[in-house]
Parts: sequence; structure tokens; C-alpha cells
Amino acid sequence: MSISKNQLKLITSLSQKKYRQKHKLFVAEGVKVVNELLNSSFELDQLFATEDFDTQNKNCQIISNEELRKISSLKTPNKVLGIFKIPAEKEISNKGLILVLDDINDPGNLGTIIRLCDWFGITTLVCSNETVDCYNQKVVQSSMGSLTRLAIKYLNLKEYLFNTELPTFIADMDGENVYKKELPKEAVLIMGNEANGVSDEIKSLIKHKISIPRFGNLQETESLNVATATAILLSEFRRN
Amino acid sequence: MSISKNQLKLITSLSQKKYRQKHKLFVAEGVKVVNELLNSSFELDQLFATEDFDTQNKNCQIISNEELRKISSLKTPNKVLGIFKIPAEKEISNKGLILVLDDINDPGNLGTIIRLCDWFGITTLVCSNETVDCYNQKVVQSSMGSLTRLAIKYLNLKEYLFNTELPTFIADMDGENVYKKELPKEAVLIMGNEANGVSDEIKSLIKHKISIPRFGNLQETESLNVATATAILLSEFRRN
Repeated sequence: MSISKNQLKLITSLSQKKYRQKHKLFVAEGVKVVNELLNSSFELDQLFATEDFDTQNKNCQIISNEELRKISSLKTPNKVLGIFKIPAEKEISNKGLILVLDDINDPGNLGTIIRLCDWFGITTLVCSNETVDCYNQKVVQSSMGSLTRLAIKYLNLKEYLFNTELPTFIADMDGENVYKKELPKEAVLIMGNEANGVSDEIKSLIKHKISIPRFGNLQETESLNVATATAILLSEFRRN
Repeated sequence: MSISKNQLKLITSLSQKKYRQKHKLFVAEGVKVVNELLNSSFELDQLFATEDFDTQNKNCQIISNEELRKISSLKTPNKVLGIFKIPAEKEISNKGLILVLDDINDPGNLGTIIRLCDWFGITTLVCSNETVDCYNQKVVQSSMGSLTRLAIKYLNLKEYLFNTELPTFIADMDGENVYKKELPKEAVLIMGNEANGVSDEIKSLIKHKISIPRFGNLQETESLNVATATAILLSEFRRN
């Protein structure tokens, strides 16, 4: 059965956040990511796959390679595309280690950070309302299924940080050497925007500033990418 | 003066490794990256910029926005494109901390890793012959000028590792917990291919296997991305 005009229109529209929010749906592609979502608590809406996709799913609509290319946003479409329901936001915890993102723009960075949370057993990710949408297709693809194992909440950061009772930390060039700082088990770690870091308004609400030392005295070295800096800091919080 | 057919042909050809090697030239784009290269030991071959690019360079050829769009491979061209000479490979050191890459395929990962080396004061990066070319344009763009501060050598890894006298380490799921392992100041750290890790042939030459522990007992969690794993391990080597 070939794809209808309405289906094509829906899939295309879901590349935009406003339509994802209107329909409460998002798109995932490729064998690995789709299978992880099918095996999770996420609910399937529609599934499109070429004949060689191995599935027991009765609702799978078989399409041609050409049709898959038409609906895919990948350079190399990989057998299957699924439309899934955006679940209700889970209640976020006020305990343990919590990661907070202040205006992360790049979908690849957010996907990598979601994978890092999953690895380091962080179950709560708090994002400023301006942070890129976690159901953006590039985020879905680069988070590799880790998206299904995390509570992600978009909210007003200023209010959130004003009300949290956990000790708060940001990465800051002028902060204390993180290797020498004793880090608590329960904390809120805030990572800032790729170009501008954490905004001044937010900074004023945060107690501890920590830095990853630069080696080799090359003053001209670029700051670390936000995803690699997050990797190092989460590792520091967990290593003790 | 508008861009000649030959110039256009040259720039287009440089997106392929064989032509970069034939001409010993590569392309860099955007104000930040081009300025870092202009201020480095790298030699300029040709410079193309729109009127609003701020430069004292006498050899700069002023072009229109439309022409820049024609030669640019960026979604959002940014004022300037430079053709630079590929420098002779620097002699690599046998001392200190050395990073070795076994078949890294993704240009974005290599660019991020080059930036990490720069941050952590690592001056020697050894790549297997199959690793993506460091003058690939996506590598140049994502390494943000760090490329100019590193000796990068492509070679036969098996021979190299057979002959090195430094202790050798790889990241391996079954390795020792890196947080509990005493790491030497001088060492060779080997990171493997995105999908397959370090090849078995290479693995057999390596003495120490180390792992980044996974938290939260989620067996299904994807392995860490190679660039974030590199960030965490370089940080572990440097933190003491």
C-alpha cells in the first residue's frame, strides 16, 4: 500500500516543532532507533518500512525504497520510519544528580547529552524553554534511544533554580579547578549555551563555579564543546 | 574581480581527498576559522571574501555574496573562504601523552577530538591510514583552528604500536575501572572506530584495557560516543 498524501503531509509537517506540539507526534528513523522506541514505553502511531525490515508489528505499512526516500530526512534511509506519540512529561525528581541546560541550540549536542545522562544514570534533565526541542528529529537520531529512559522537562529556569534546595554548580572559566573540588552526590549541574555560556541572570542564582583546567598554556585554545565539557563534568560527579 | 572557472574547479575538487593530496591544498571557511589559520604557521594560497570581511591581507580577492554561496559548502556562508597549503607532516614525539585513533570515520568526531587534544595539551595525534583525513572540510570547520597546534601523523598503526616503548591503553567494555586505575603521565591512549571499536589485531598489541563505568544498571544503554569517551579518558590522564 503506498503512502497517502495526508500521511506524506503529516510526516513533512513533523519536522517543525509547532506541528509536533499540535499533533503530539514525532518521527524516528532507522532500524536501531525505531526498534528501541518500539521496545520502550513510547506509543507507536504509524510505522512505515521496506520489505526487508524484520518486524512482527501488525500495523506496519510496507513501502518501496523510493517511497522511503521520499519521507526520510536521512542521507541514507535505513529500512524504517516510525511516527510515535509524544508522551506526557514525567514528574521530575528533586533528588540525586540533576542536569540543567540553559539554551542549548544544537540538536546534535542535545542528543549527545541525552546519551551521556543515560550512561551516567541521570534520570532528570531540565531544559530552559529556549533549548532545542528533544523531539527534533536530529535529537531523536543522535540520542539513539536514550530518550526513552529519561524525564525531560522544559521550564522557566530562573524559577526552577530559585526554588531548588540542592547545591548548584556551573562550568565557568573562572571557577574552581573541578579536579580539586569535593563534589556532592546530590546536586544540580548547569551547562550553558554553545556561544554565550550560562546567562548572567541565571549565573547570579548559582552557588558554585567550577572549571575544567586547560593544559599546555595555549591561551588561544577554543573553549571545550558543551557536550564534551558535560561528559567530563558528569564523570567528575560520578567518579567518587 | 569575479572567480574564474579554474578557481571554481579547484575549490570544488578540494572536497575530495585525492585532489587535496595532489594539490597539497585544503579549504577553510568562516571568519573565525580562517583568521585562526591566517594567524598560524599555515601558508595561505588564495583568499576569497565579501566586502565586509575585515582584513589587511593584500591578496584577498573580493567577491559577491552570490559568488561566496557558489563556492561555499556551509549552509550559512560566513564572509570568507581560504585555500591553504597542507604543511609537511611534523615529526611526532615519543614522549608525553599520545593519542592514537584506529579508523575514526566521522569528520565531526575527528574535529572534536582535535579540539580536545588542544585543550589537554596533547601535541601528537597518531591516526591509522584509514582514519578520515584531517584536511576534510568538516574536520577543519569543527576543529576550530586547533588543527594548527597539533602534529598529526597518518601511519600503519600495527607497526607504530609494535615499536612504541610507552605503556599502551585502550578503552574496552571489559577493561579495568578507569577511576580506580593509576595512570602514568606518559602513555599511548588508543580510541577505536565508532561502530567496531579497536580492531582485534591492534588489541592484541595493547597492554592495558580501561573502561568508563556505566551508572544506573541500564544494560540497554548505548556505548558512549567516541568523542565523549575520549574527553573523559583524556581528563582522567590529566587530572592527577
